[in-house]
Amino acid sequence: MKAAFLSIGDELLIGQTVNTNASWLGQECSQFGIQVIRVLAVSDTQAEIVNALDNLLEVADLVLITGGLGPTKDDITKHTLVQYFGTRLVMHEPTLRQIEDFFQRRNRPMLSANIQQAELPESCTILPNPNGTAAGMWFEKKGKIVVSMPGVPYEMKGIMLDHVFPKLSNQFELKNMYHRTIMTQGIGESFLAEKIKAWEDGVRNSGLGLAYLPSPGQVKLRLTSYEGEERRAEINDWFQILLKQIPQFAYTMDEHSLAEVIHKLMVDQHITLGTVESCTAGKLSGEITSVPGSSAYFNGTFVTYSNELKERILGIPSETIAQHGAVSEVVARLMAEAGREKLGVDWCISTTGVAGPSGGTDEKPVGTVFIGVASKGCSWVQSYQFGDNRSRNIQMTVLTALNLLRCKILQITA
Amino acid sequence: MKAAFLSIGDELLIGQTVNTNASWLGQECSQFGIQVIRVLAVSDTQAEIVNALDNLLEVADLVLITGGLGPTKDDITKHTLVQYFGTRLVMHEPTLRQIEDFFQRRNRPMLSANIQQAELPESCTILPNPNGTAAGMWFEKKGKIVVSMPGVPYEMKGIMLDHVFPKLSNQFELKNMYHRTIMTQGIGESFLAEKIKAWEDGVRNSGLGLAYLPSPGQVKLRLTSYEGEERRAEINDWFQILLKQIPQFAYTMDEHSLAEVIHKLMVDQHITLGTVESCTAGKLSGEITSVPGSSAYFNGTFVTYSNELKERILGIPSETIAQHGAVSEVVARLMAEAGREKLGVDWCISTTGVAGPSGGTDEKPVGTVFIGVASKGCSWVQSYQFGDNRSRNIQMTVLTALNLLRCKILQITA
Repeated sequence: MKAAFLSIGDELLIGQTVNTNASWLGQECSQFGIQVIRVLAVSDTQAEIVNALDNLLEVADLVLITGGLGPTKDDITKHTLVQYFGTRLVMHEPTLRQIEDFFQRRNRPMLSANIQQAELPESCTILPNPNGTAAGMWFEKKGKIVVSMPGVPYEMKGIMLDHVFPKLSNQFELKNMYHRTIMTQGIGESFLAEKIKAWEDGVRNSGLGLAYLPSPGQVKLRLTSYEGEERRAEINDWFQILLKQIPQFAYTMDEHSLAEVIHKLMVDQHITLGTVESCTAGKLSGEITSVPGSSAYFNGTFVTYSNELKERILGIPSETIAQHGAVSEVVARLMAEAGREKLGVDWCISTTGVAGPSGGTDEKPVGTVFIGVASKGCSWVQSYQFGDNRSRNIQMTVLTALNLLRCKILQITA
Repeated sequence: MKAAFLSIGDELLIGQTVNTNASWLGQECSQFGIQVIRVLAVSDTQAEIVNALDNLLEVADLVLITGGLGPTKDDITKHTLVQYFGTRLVMHEPTLRQIEDFFQRRNRPMLSANIQQAELPESCTILPNPNGTAAGMWFEKKGKIVVSMPGVPYEMKGIMLDHVFPKLSNQFELKNMYHRTIMTQGIGESFLAEKIKAWEDGVRNSGLGLAYLPSPGQVKLRLTSYEGEERRAEINDWFQILLKQIPQFAYTMDEHSLAEVIHKLMVDQHITLGTVESCTAGKLSGEITSVPGSSAYFNGTFVTYSNELKERILGIPSETIAQHGAVSEVVARLMAEAGREKLGVDWCISTTGVAGPSGGTDEKPVGTVFIGVASKGCSWVQSYQFGDNRSRNIQMTVLTALNLLRCKILQITA
């Protein structure tokens, strides 16, 4: 079954609203093996809606429409569909009672515009919307299905889950696509592809789908079975091979963040954590504590942005800073070691670097970062060269630091 | 001028990526009076891309394509465009050098897949992409323009701002809409509307457009002149009235962040800043230092997440914490005052609160936050009740703390 989504509303075109309905629908449809082939947004005009329907119904068996069902004048989806399917509006009593009830429960007066929302196309199946005043409408024509729903996300989701998917399951044998994702950090898309070439060939030859989904500092790998969950174990095996092959990059299956992976390590191993930050200036600490329950193992942070604080709080000799610079291997190491002791933690991460846009030198250009990790009796420092965008350098440092910590705790050679 | 956007990539169809590129492009194009008429997402297949181009070029003068330009096998946009425009790939030396440079600066080896990214269509104008390895491509055919850009948001934005809009302005007379924005913090959309009702009536009666653009903790007010810059002074006057009327909420004209406003205050007044954070755990410090040059006045931070660190680092008596709780007015005050002294700064902000989801009590439910501000000889604490979402509570605390600091420095009664 092939589906297309049609989102109606000027607010989507001028960018005032991000089309999160389309991404939710895409995820849900994929789960059921419904292949999404086009996502289209058009304005609230009859000509555009008709053109879009013609175009989408040429290739799709199912068109899911969202938006344009409100009580105001600019909402014209319903009238357009009445014409498109050659039907007429009739008062739908159950919907009228539902709308009356909706306003009564909220103690608000009902307007004539709301009563008109109960006038619905005669030829369609009405899909009740308990969360609002615009009902869903299910049309069928020449073996194709068009469903119109309100654009308010939770109203649309309710109609999809309560009515649309159940009706589709009754009428069609929905395929059961199965996706799983593995997260990687620290390697770019093309290097990753190069490194796992043989694995990728194996995956593709076995008839599974593979997608690379890059974001700054991370690449997600998504494996897809077109035969549903029955290949679950096989997908798991492929991922286990990969986790062993590139343990320094691949850090978890499924969409967990690095901070969540660190959380699990800390809780499982009963260890505590702190950070000493210069260039990340609290963003690393902020990321770690984004996970609920992190207070169980995270003690705290020193952001020693000034050299004076590096000396006074951490006890790093001013001569060391003068000789090597605040952005240096030796200072990163001393920061991590001093932080471990002064924060009273088992593990401590440090960051020092030139985030930019200024502060770079020939020897240490913008993007130069040193990350230190200290544990009992041992410390490590690695240097990186990220790029020239300040916020990206900070973000890359945060992710890289968490992955370095993960590798050190798990004794993986990074 | 009518524009359509074409986003290429299965990740958009299956909902793994939300199409934020389309909303950014929609906002920017609207600024220039370019009417966006369709937004379409299709899969990485040649047939779909060709069909989409045919369809969109029927109604649009300009088609902006994003995505499908990566170095991996599933990226086929470039090859499809070569066929569509009847041209061929040739090595583009400036792009090759730019890609070489890109890898050199990052100290990473270059792969053959990356070299192939410098092979570009002969008939198009190349739009350099300093932030990545996929260049932009500008095609013209029968008076219509098709621009292809990478899907990575900041690469796409760079190409749009540096090349596409300037080229469009040169070739066409873009409409001159004039927008200005005022930023507010600390008041919700409907309360703000109530408070500035008379002002809003005046604005609307004068024929200017007004939009409320809410985001968590902030509401932007956008004034629009449909007659271009000639009403600039008038818009400025309206905003000056508002800045005087609600100085505790309205903090700047134009899209500056609160951190940028603090930056200016710090630099102008030659004062220094530090933070002591519990519930925000470094996010406040991270926000302050997101501004380039913040190291001139920002010394550092103590994240005292554990009570033990509040005692040991800040010297807050354990009895005080036991008596009042770590989330209390007295602890917030002591945190700010101790931080001011120990960080050696003129101003210090402190945060302590119950971010959630657990840790709430009847007396101090999830969302309870105390924010302290200390300056020489004086300190203030305010308490807040935000909500039950952890990341939102942290974000609200960061914004509220910065605005409280601003009010205290400027001696505005909050």
